[in-house]
Amino acid sequence: MRYAVLGTSIAGRTIAAKLASLGHEVAIGTRDPQATLARTEPDAMGNPPFATWYAAHPAVPPRTFAEAAGFGETVVNTTAGTAALDALHAAGSDNLAGKVLIDIANPLDFSQGMPPTLNPVNTDSLGEQVQRAFPDARVVKTLNTMNCSIMVEPGRIAGAHNVFVSGADVGAKRQVTELLVSFGWPESSVIDLGGIETARGAEMLLPIWLRLYGALGHADFNFHIVGAR
Amino acid sequence: MRYAVLGTSIAGRTIAAKLASLGHEVAIGTRDPQATLARTEPDAMGNPPFATWYAAHPAVPPRTFAEAAGFGETVVNTTAGTAALDALHAAGSDNLAGKVLIDIANPLDFSQGMPPTLNPVNTDSLGEQVQRAFPDARVVKTLNTMNCSIMVEPGRIAGAHNVFVSGADVGAKRQVTELLVSFGWPESSVIDLGGIETARGAEMLLPIWLRLYGALGHADFNFHIVGAR
Repeated sequence: MRYAVLGTSIAGRTIAAKLASLGHEVAIGTRDPQATLARTEPDAMGNPPFATWYAAHPAVPPRTFAEAAGFGETVVNTTAGTAALDALHAAGSDNLAGKVLIDIANPLDFSQGMPPTLNPVNTDSLGEQVQRAFPDARVVKTLNTMNCSIMVEPGRIAGAHNVFVSGADVGAKRQVTELLVSFGWPESSVIDLGGIETARGAEMLLPIWLRLYGALGHADFNFHIVGAR
Repeated sequence: MRYAVLGTSIAGRTIAAKLASLGHEVAIGTRDPQATLARTEPDAMGNPPFATWYAAHPAVPPRTFAEAAGFGETVVNTTAGTAALDALHAAGSDNLAGKVLIDIANPLDFSQGMPPTLNPVNTDSLGEQVQRAFPDARVVKTLNTMNCSIMVEPGRIAGAHNVFVSGADVGAKRQVTELLVSFGWPESSVIDLGGIETARGAEMLLPIWLRLYGALGHADFNFHIVGAR
């Protein structure tokens, strides 16, 4: 399948590389491909500049958001939460219509310092905002509750753990579940929370994720929902 | 030890009964003990009236919030989140000063229908509000992330799972951890998130807890934080 991955941060690179390794055709979307390629400094988290990554992944060309979304049969939003709607508008509603749109972004606001806050909360979510803004896209919220290294390699975690999916379109959730299985997730590890409004719950996991990251000193963990004996 | 459990809902009853079963002296606090005893209807969740429970637990007398807090060497707040500060003010700062105050309440607002929303979020938490309102109490947020049946019987869940503690007072967290161990929690299952401000994370777990409750169809589950191989 042809995939568009919107966003060139570590999450976007990790998803794009995984999709390419599975034999998919992948374009990675960014606002200004030339500017993205021209950067020579590591990002704020110390990841190498995009050009370094692209040299190792020449099959994943950087494209504008619109070019990438037009190319992809399925679109994955990995942009920063505060930039996600702008990026998707740049991608264009015509390029998203009818397509499965996988939203793995979190609406974290770093403008007031660390730890970031979430916005929206409670009565709305980024997943819902995306679905409302692009009613013809088939939005599925997933994978936003863990570090990107785990998204594409769930076996790095010891024992069972979970990934959540939220969305109105049952067929889209089925397709996303099959994609997760191809990433290495046992189908039994995928928990369907319900409609896209349940993304409120998945996004509001981030505050404890951030505190666990602090308490444990690393991001190599995930949530397992354990039931009664 | 002498414990005051504030709140006569199912959570308060469950904690009080467990403490009594472990040999502690327990008083259960309510706004108006006579009114609490006089109720004859089940509560909104179908639990029997308090008098029925009291008949089975005659060693746990209902007292006013102030009487109970004055009696307890340690105080457990199990009141509804929206009523917690009022209940604690009724208990009285003098009756809380210097004591470990275990806050298991969640600031859920049911006034706009189901599912409830959380208030505060992001930049404050009920745990912090309680600590600010009663600076001489040694507040520990814990046990708010699961059904009360699991709080006092962690073995009902299959395999490892976790309980979080948040608080400024290391000695208070140590005492609470020992209490949790006496409830059946392996010490390794207790995750110290840090200061009381980390209660923001633990409280913001409730939105996904509520969606999981809906998706799974029961409340007999808990979170396990799983690390790398």
